[in-house]
Amino acid sequence: MNLDFAKSDGLITAVIQDHQSGRVLMVGYMNEEAFRLTVDTGFATFYSRSRKKLWLKGESSGHRLVVKEIRTDCDLDAVLVAVEAIGPGVCHEGYESCFFRKLDGREWKVVDTRTYDPNAVYGGKA
Amino acid sequence: MNLDFAKSDGLITAVIQDHQSGRVLMVGYMNEEAFRLTVDTGFATFYSRSRKKLWLKGESSGHRLVVKEIRTDCDLDAVLVAVEAIGPGVCHEGYESCFFRKLDGREWKVVDTRTYDPNAVYGGKA
Repeated sequence: MNLDFAKSDGLITAVIQDHQSGRVLMVGYMNEEAFRLTVDTGFATFYSRSRKKLWLKGESSGHRLVVKEIRTDCDLDAVLVAVEAIGPGVCHEGYESCFFRKLDGREWKVVDTRTYDPNAVYGGKA
Repeated sequence: MNLDFAKSDGLITAVIQDHQSGRVLMVGYMNEEAFRLTVDTGFATFYSRSRKKLWLKGESSGHRLVVKEIRTDCDLDAVLVAVEAIGPGVCHEGYESCFFRKLDGREWKVVDTRTYDPNAVYGGKA
């Protein structure tokens, strides 16, 4: 399972895609341990660059990502993870996908509708 | 068009997705100039981390990526670019997508078929 963790400070890029719709849900980063946990547990696990620690997606929200397939790219520094997303959305702002803003001219516009209330899920939690 | 280039040494992550099939074709990185050129020219342009310079995708192969839509994520440090890929494949190894290897048990296996001969396209070029 050799991947090139050295190229980018110990991290590879992980693109998370819905296994049925093909929608790209989020982009995260994995260190070697996060990748190993993702493979071994079957739940997508990341390394949080801001919190500097392992992050099991859904650990506070319950919105886990069940791994269906993992691919890697030609230079082995990115993975594409097809998932079944548990719950109404992966984005902590309440959307199905973190990519809810679209470039319109030179402005970012929110083009998706919230699928859940983030305050009800994340309220009071870091 | 403010994006968070500061978080990762001046670069954002760019996920390239076929605008029709939804297939993820490649992951690249953009600095602020590459992103501006992508928006202004309508062709995906990256910053090559290995060559440390701007890289118009398709500049040697002709396999350009025509931008159809650009989205950004909740923390503004990644973009999802829907493209029409000109030519038989985006991967310099001869595949439609750079994600041509799948994890099978604990081994990466090539699961796609080449769509073109990379030597005929890239032969003799850097």
